[in-house]
Amino acid sequence: MLIDGLQCGFYGRDVFEELKAGGFTCVTPTLGFWEGAIESFDAIGKWRDMARANSDLVTIALKTDDILVADRDGKTALLLGYQNTNLLDGRIRYVELFADLGVRVLQLTYNNQNDVGSSCYEAVDPGLSRFGREVVREMDRCGLLVDCSHVGDRTTLDAIEWSQKPIAITHANPSSVFPHKRNKSDEVIKALAAKGGIIGCAAYRNITPVEACDRVDAWAEMVARTVDIAGIDHVGLGTDFSHHTSQSYLDWMRQGRWTRTAQYGAGSATNTAPSEKPAWLKKISGLAAVAPALAKQGFNPEEVEKITSGNWLRVYRAVFG
Amino acid sequence: MLIDGLQCGFYGRDVFEELKAGGFTCVTPTLGFWEGAIESFDAIGKWRDMARANSDLVTIALKTDDILVADRDGKTALLLGYQNTNLLDGRIRYVELFADLGVRVLQLTYNNQNDVGSSCYEAVDPGLSRFGREVVREMDRCGLLVDCSHVGDRTTLDAIEWSQKPIAITHANPSSVFPHKRNKSDEVIKALAAKGGIIGCAAYRNITPVEACDRVDAWAEMVARTVDIAGIDHVGLGTDFSHHTSQSYLDWMRQGRWTRTAQYGAGSATNTAPSEKPAWLKKISGLAAVAPALAKQGFNPEEVEKITSGNWLRVYRAVFG
Repeated sequence: MLIDGLQCGFYGRDVFEELKAGGFTCVTPTLGFWEGAIESFDAIGKWRDMARANSDLVTIALKTDDILVADRDGKTALLLGYQNTNLLDGRIRYVELFADLGVRVLQLTYNNQNDVGSSCYEAVDPGLSRFGREVVREMDRCGLLVDCSHVGDRTTLDAIEWSQKPIAITHANPSSVFPHKRNKSDEVIKALAAKGGIIGCAAYRNITPVEACDRVDAWAEMVARTVDIAGIDHVGLGTDFSHHTSQSYLDWMRQGRWTRTAQYGAGSATNTAPSEKPAWLKKISGLAAVAPALAKQGFNPEEVEKITSGNWLRVYRAVFG
Repeated sequence: MLIDGLQCGFYGRDVFEELKAGGFTCVTPTLGFWEGAIESFDAIGKWRDMARANSDLVTIALKTDDILVADRDGKTALLLGYQNTNLLDGRIRYVELFADLGVRVLQLTYNNQNDVGSSCYEAVDPGLSRFGREVVREMDRCGLLVDCSHVGDRTTLDAIEWSQKPIAITHANPSSVFPHKRNKSDEVIKALAAKGGIIGCAAYRNITPVEACDRVDAWAEMVARTVDIAGIDHVGLGTDFSHHTSQSYLDWMRQGRWTRTAQYGAGSATNTAPSEKPAWLKKISGLAAVAPALAKQGFNPEEVEKITSGNWLRVYRAVFG
């Protein structure tokens, strides 16, 4: 089985075929970044239509067993997720509504502070707000996985402590391996693991060592370093692979509607374009090369299985059954 | 002239008649607390209808001169304001849209952290966020008065420093006179005054000394203490008077849609009801008693005029002309 904890970009039948070719059992696509409630309900409608139109290839998973059924049927299970809690529009009761409509993963913040907490790009992170504490507990109750990628360290540590479930950093790498605001300190990763959580290692060039983008073996070595920090039960894959990225999509991710000025996200003023995909992951089906590369790092078959799917399944089962 | 920098509650012809009876030249009513963009556009529509239906009593002011015209015509000018930037729905371009539709005052946060900054009730205030800095500068450009009542100290100090215009604390008292999270430290008040801003003294019982609620002379003495801190050019009136407050309105102010649990705002678990109005301000027309009470504190007629209207007019002219 192969589970990717986070992807983004534009999906269509061609992408679903590529996921099948790559042997993906489950993928969390990104349904939104900055959108409010109405636009986020729209996205659920759109994804339901896409799943129906491509029901020979994909299925929307509501429970962990749905992922196992998809695997048996040779389909890719889709776990609906958003990279922000903006979609709540400040309403605690919308957590339950989005959960009932099939959403399973919410990142607490995207690149900016919101009413829940702070992002890794703000100058100061005050931790979970009053509303943020309510949201995390309500997500626990409703079976939504708390995702702290893009989230500031203080807010992440608060979420790990305050949540009564394991939480996820779906797509980031250790900052001790590649220093970047988007990556996570050993302290955060260890705290996450201590509460049963999981970090999905990313293959997004701006937050990944050059060598690990050049060769899958070097990427597998980075995963091994992450296992050294988190432990074998707390690391998974979370590529952050973006399908059919356009400049306008990139502008949306970086600038949304919050600013008229140029923003670079994980890029920089001298590195503004969509980042080039890793040499071994030009197509998402390339992720199939990770399992043998992990074996070459010395992981036994059981350990490889944990990293490529088992750890995600355990966390999913703990959060939404 | 008599200007009140902030009122709230339910308005209707009876309230407008009461404002006329009290000799009010200008009032900033609260058009919203937690509402998003659509509901806030709705409120503008409602207030335009109310102003048209009561055009013999009130007029919506867009410029400072409109206030002077209203005074000449014996009407009360209404300066449209909201106690949150929630209405932007994260969109920088909505600042200009709301300004063009007649909004003149925006409080950066209400009782909770949002994407702009933090409130006085959060455990930690990180200061203005990245979006918050954009919003403040855009408010400067579009002629919207930045209000930092209910806002945390760090965010308030950041706004004072970052804004290129004078800003306001429309309804609060010095915490050195009455310690309360909603009131402002001498440090904040002095920084506000140093940049040409204004604090509107409040007559809301939960943040006002008991004695000042009992007797208008004691309230005028509190205003005099505020002048000692801010200087004679930087203090005005901002009663926070709530018209026709109902329990459901109070619940909305305190709990909005962000929580299902009991919240007390400026009250407390042992003090949950709508706060009793000051003995001398059972009706808003009672504010007319403040001018003579200020004179009894030793303020000369020119100084009384500054406190009761002149300082607000100066700030309004600096911000929106």
